[in-house]
Amino acid sequence: MEGIIIDDGARVPLTLSQQAIRRMPYYLKYLKNLGASSDGYISASTIATELRFYEGLVRKDLAFVSSISGKPRVGFRISDLIDDIEHFLGYDIPNRAILVGAGHLGKALMCYKGFDDYGLEIVAAFDSDKKLSGKEAGGKTIFHVSKLENLCGRLNARIGIITVPAYAAQGVCDMLVSGGVMAVWNFAPVQLNVPGGILIQNENMAESLAILSNHLMERR
Amino acid sequence: MEGIIIDDGARVPLTLSQQAIRRMPYYLKYLKNLGASSDGYISASTIATELRFYEGLVRKDLAFVSSISGKPRVGFRISDLIDDIEHFLGYDIPNRAILVGAGHLGKALMCYKGFDDYGLEIVAAFDSDKKLSGKEAGGKTIFHVSKLENLCGRLNARIGIITVPAYAAQGVCDMLVSGGVMAVWNFAPVQLNVPGGILIQNENMAESLAILSNHLMERR
Repeated sequence: MEGIIIDDGARVPLTLSQQAIRRMPYYLKYLKNLGASSDGYISASTIATELRFYEGLVRKDLAFVSSISGKPRVGFRISDLIDDIEHFLGYDIPNRAILVGAGHLGKALMCYKGFDDYGLEIVAAFDSDKKLSGKEAGGKTIFHVSKLENLCGRLNARIGIITVPAYAAQGVCDMLVSGGVMAVWNFAPVQLNVPGGILIQNENMAESLAILSNHLMERR
Repeated sequence: MEGIIIDDGARVPLTLSQQAIRRMPYYLKYLKNLGASSDGYISASTIATELRFYEGLVRKDLAFVSSISGKPRVGFRISDLIDDIEHFLGYDIPNRAILVGAGHLGKALMCYKGFDDYGLEIVAAFDSDKKLSGKEAGGKTIFHVSKLENLCGRLNARIGIITVPAYAAQGVCDMLVSGGVMAVWNFAPVQLNVPGGILIQNENMAESLAILSNHLMERR
């Protein structure tokens, strides 16, 4: 539900849709790539043209997140806009995460250096394989999964990342919720049940593979 | 666009929507998990209840992919339905893929054993880092990216997987298209331009992170 308020003459929504939130990383990436020129200004219409978004959407998105309205004919100061988007998304305050399932994908995520840019900090990992207990990946320790519920709260983790096989995912999800996480990033190809107020963000590669494969089938 | 035809009394769409294709992996996973009982039969309503999909959607999806209609009060033979969905998605005929960007994520995908189930076979990888040339991951050789356009066709690759940084992705995409791929699975956080007829499937983790982080911001 989007409400509107009157704010310095512009109609600005009270909340942003998920689609609008999904556009934010594109703005951020584009603005950061401007690099050396980030002391300059940029207009919503330039951003819209470059990213091939509708200009009206871009104006609405930026009016919502920006603390200062863009100046007529000058636009937004690039460095301020970067700060505003990062603040809106919460990237300026790191979210601590724990990861469950230290297989190839889990280790890839543990080793990925880019999450800092998104305010995500993986602080520890868990796996059911006792041989992995005490090992490290990307500088983070892997614990046995039996320690998950106990350590989750002590580590102050707000995000749980699930990279276990599908059959184990719901059990892991329940432990993460008991442990106190507020959001789950799920890479297992399964639909998870959670209590209200907990966000599930699915990263379902099986869906993508189905679409890719079906597209190629149709072209045979 | 979905047309309809009359087929043994049921109205069946001529093509399935992307949303319907996205549901197929869930049916497949569920049916395969039934395992030992897969000589048995299952009804669309049982599947709908278990997966929490609308029964009408499930009936329509299964009527479209199944070679034999479900029998009244008995349902679909599980093993036949698995075969039909795999055939519909093209999982029974492997699609050869090449991967570009053999960093942590690229290597995780190269080492992942589960792609066989989705008819995806990564046959080689490419990277701009000369130190990686000739190395292997998951039994697949890494070549220098300068060999991409030449080898792409010779390897008969129909899918290109992009796991390079955002700034390099469009250039890699252009090389893949020149090399003859029909579909691109893109993990770089950037919108790619391709000629008509080429499918881009984005796996945009930055979008997911934005939604996760924003959710936690709202709960602070």
